[in-house]
Amino acid sequence: MRGPIFNQDDSEFFSVRDPSEVSGEAVDAWVDGLAQAGIGTLMSCVCAMVANYASSVWETRWTRYDPEGPDDQPLLAHLAPESVPATRRWIESEKRLAELGVNFHERAFARCKQHGIGAWASIRMNDLHDCNLPESPLLSSFYKDQRDRGLTRVPYRSGGWPELALDWGREEVRDHYMRLVREVLSFRGIEGLELDWMRFGWHFRIGREAEGGELLTDWIRRVRRLCDAAAQREGHPVRLGCRVPSTPQTARMLGMDGAAWAREGLVDLVVPTPFWETCEFDMPIATWKGLLEGTNCALAGGLEIRYQPCRGGWSSMMTPELAAGAATAVLAGGADYVYLFNYFAKGHLDNLWSPESYVRTLSAMRGLATLNKLPRRHGVTFRDIVAPGEPSGRLLPAEPGLSIFRIQTGPKPVGRSVQVLLELEAADGAEPEAPGVRVNSVECPAPTREGKAVLLYPVPDAALSDSETVIEATSAARIIRVEVVIGAPEA
Amino acid sequence: MRGPIFNQDDSEFFSVRDPSEVSGEAVDAWVDGLAQAGIGTLMSCVCAMVANYASSVWETRWTRYDPEGPDDQPLLAHLAPESVPATRRWIESEKRLAELGVNFHERAFARCKQHGIGAWASIRMNDLHDCNLPESPLLSSFYKDQRDRGLTRVPYRSGGWPELALDWGREEVRDHYMRLVREVLSFRGIEGLELDWMRFGWHFRIGREAEGGELLTDWIRRVRRLCDAAAQREGHPVRLGCRVPSTPQTARMLGMDGAAWAREGLVDLVVPTPFWETCEFDMPIATWKGLLEGTNCALAGGLEIRYQPCRGGWSSMMTPELAAGAATAVLAGGADYVYLFNYFAKGHLDNLWSPESYVRTLSAMRGLATLNKLPRRHGVTFRDIVAPGEPSGRLLPAEPGLSIFRIQTGPKPVGRSVQVLLELEAADGAEPEAPGVRVNSVECPAPTREGKAVLLYPVPDAALSDSETVIEATSAARIIRVEVVIGAPEA
Repeated sequence: MRGPIFNQDDSEFFSVRDPSEVSGEAVDAWVDGLAQAGIGTLMSCVCAMVANYASSVWETRWTRYDPEGPDDQPLLAHLAPESVPATRRWIESEKRLAELGVNFHERAFARCKQHGIGAWASIRMNDLHDCNLPESPLLSSFYKDQRDRGLTRVPYRSGGWPELALDWGREEVRDHYMRLVREVLSFRGIEGLELDWMRFGWHFRIGREAEGGELLTDWIRRVRRLCDAAAQREGHPVRLGCRVPSTPQTARMLGMDGAAWAREGLVDLVVPTPFWETCEFDMPIATWKGLLEGTNCALAGGLEIRYQPCRGGWSSMMTPELAAGAATAVLAGGADYVYLFNYFAKGHLDNLWSPESYVRTLSAMRGLATLNKLPRRHGVTFRDIVAPGEPSGRLLPAEPGLSIFRIQTGPKPVGRSVQVLLELEAADGAEPEAPGVRVNSVECPAPTREGKAVLLYPVPDAALSDSETVIEATSAARIIRVEVVIGAPEA
Repeated sequence: MRGPIFNQDDSEFFSVRDPSEVSGEAVDAWVDGLAQAGIGTLMSCVCAMVANYASSVWETRWTRYDPEGPDDQPLLAHLAPESVPATRRWIESEKRLAELGVNFHERAFARCKQHGIGAWASIRMNDLHDCNLPESPLLSSFYKDQRDRGLTRVPYRSGGWPELALDWGREEVRDHYMRLVREVLSFRGIEGLELDWMRFGWHFRIGREAEGGELLTDWIRRVRRLCDAAAQREGHPVRLGCRVPSTPQTARMLGMDGAAWAREGLVDLVVPTPFWETCEFDMPIATWKGLLEGTNCALAGGLEIRYQPCRGGWSSMMTPELAAGAATAVLAGGADYVYLFNYFAKGHLDNLWSPESYVRTLSAMRGLATLNKLPRRHGVTFRDIVAPGEPSGRLLPAEPGLSIFRIQTGPKPVGRSVQVLLELEAADGAEPEAPGVRVNSVECPAPTREGKAVLLYPVPDAALSDSETVIEATSAARIIRVEVVIGAPEA
């Protein structure tokens, strides 16, 4: 395997293209773009609740779509009217490629092989987009039947999408997904199958995760055998991977004991990752590495695309500098690869990433030496995937007084500009007093300001450290953002 | 090795006896009491800041004590006057045993051997009792010199005892302790040495823990070689153990990477444990077990003696039922042994534990089968050992609304009375409304009350589960205590 690993979701390729633009050649050109960005392994997602290719065993996005029908046909009737044209275009793009006789994934795999890019399929094991709507192009008949019969995970309480997840404790759910697994493993050229347990990460009734985890492990044993059979057919290994919650104990408590799967030899790749609200800069990668020692299983650390310091607060997309920081922490912590989720060249990154910075940043993620040549930022965020009843500790916002922040910052940034950024909550445009700051016990000089409430403290050389940075701040105002800002090395 | 493992602190034996009562025979009788309570391994603590035996390399408790001197002699002058008589008695007891030519530990080890009890010495690696006093019988000259020269861990801020800890990043600190290690390893009959890194658990300057951890690992390599040399002399293994923070990542972030020490073959026993404020019922034992797989290192889970659901709130000593619950979680999670700290037969347990319950509970801790015959309680508490800058998640107190609590509860308590206890915050003796409660997704019937604010919900059989219990409570009042109360099996 090679990194970085790139997850292509089930819809992006189709939703940014007009039906007239999709073709086998368009798939090839898209893979060429991945190669240009230095991607080492592709995880090509085949589904959310429905398949994005002409499946014989699952509904597809267009199964219940009538191209001649009106905008209020049943499949579209519950969408916001303004989103209907884009939705139709997207569905028709998927339909069109299938009608051309092209399986998106097999075509991509073949092109990947030409570039030396690893060719994996990825299955979302419990996707829940739109699951609170009575109908949507995202919903499968299977899902709606389970939901409408009250068989979801938390049927006794209305909540968010995760409460409405399928209950993997039910045999029909496990069978439903096994049908898809069998079909996907028949794809020509497949080199690996990823079970994406993080879309979404809650699969069992509350309090039934431990026994659910045993069912899941047994189910994965069956998938492992199917992978081995596919490998016989293909004449090369067909590996098995999984995306799981960022923390080993959380993963285990949610029934996704990736470390145990690795130790049993069931999986070849484990990807701890946050869910979605924010990239997690401080995953316990070293603990994962320790758990996988003595196995043949590789470890990748998952980067998400949102950046949110305070839960429910201000958020943005990850910048190239933040992505470089998160990726550095993953590799410095001992992971074999960086794994990118939702890092599409077009779309939501357009404003923050130039095409050049996209290629430069992603291609540097192949290793620590190349990453360490980029400027980077490490931000304090929070864990957005915890088990029900697990405490979720958060550092931000930090109340007035002494606050301490610890963050993994990778190799000691010797000979580079290093600053600590603090953003304070400022009432009515007031200019809050600058907190006193120490980094790794060393006092920092007075900060400069970016506007009124963002302070940048120069970090003295004597404070620099390997692997982690600890910031002590004594503030009269609430602190709402904390970053370690590391400049590019001098040329 | 056998469990349970029992830590005898440096002072208890002496402080509960008059100087006229200490003797080699008294030590024997005390060990006989451990045997009667079913203790499998003794960790006999040799020191806090000073040695409790006639050391040639460290000060002892009585080095600077003048038996003929007044109550305001320098060593005692900063104590509260009412505590001076008991302090003098205790110092004189230690002195007396030494004058009789008895080394407490060697004598205890010999008696342990007769009973088949494992005979280990334990060294507190950074004890800090009284460290904010200018002088006290607990303080060593070495410590005061370091402190008074501003060389402690956090010299720039006044804080609690942990801020005043010795800085293990300093060579003279490591050398100071190495002298004691060498002497203790010369004790006749020693079968193991414990490095107690949890008295107290903070050893490095803030932000310097990672590089400090490397120094510590190197230091432990030297101790390992000394253990091997002692084993040659004794003609049997001399094992090495360590007490470390309850969570692997926290331990690592504080420079105490017990899992790495085990994987390098440096230690034979790792004991994750809370610090002191409260017993921790929910330690990630399974993660520790995974990290130690493939090593020859044993795993014990540490029980402390205090029980405190809300940090800074009401607390009590652990009851026999709570201790049985915490021990059950440790063994069910995969630990080899239960480890008891501060569980003395006399003193602070007098009011809660009868002599019979003490023997019954401790002796049952040798294994899950025997423990599972006792009534037990599992309580929601918090982690009292985290790294500076690490978020410390807490479940209690829980604010009004829906709260979820998850707790490790060991083997499914089939055929036994099972209840969930909720204690609510009640203003002015009011009787708060009973929250609606589900256990493992199953709704519980109406509760009974113990007084006004403590509610006991019967748990339906259908809700019982193995290993973990999850409680969902919708409450109009704050919740301040949560327990799973499991009755004895029917005879």
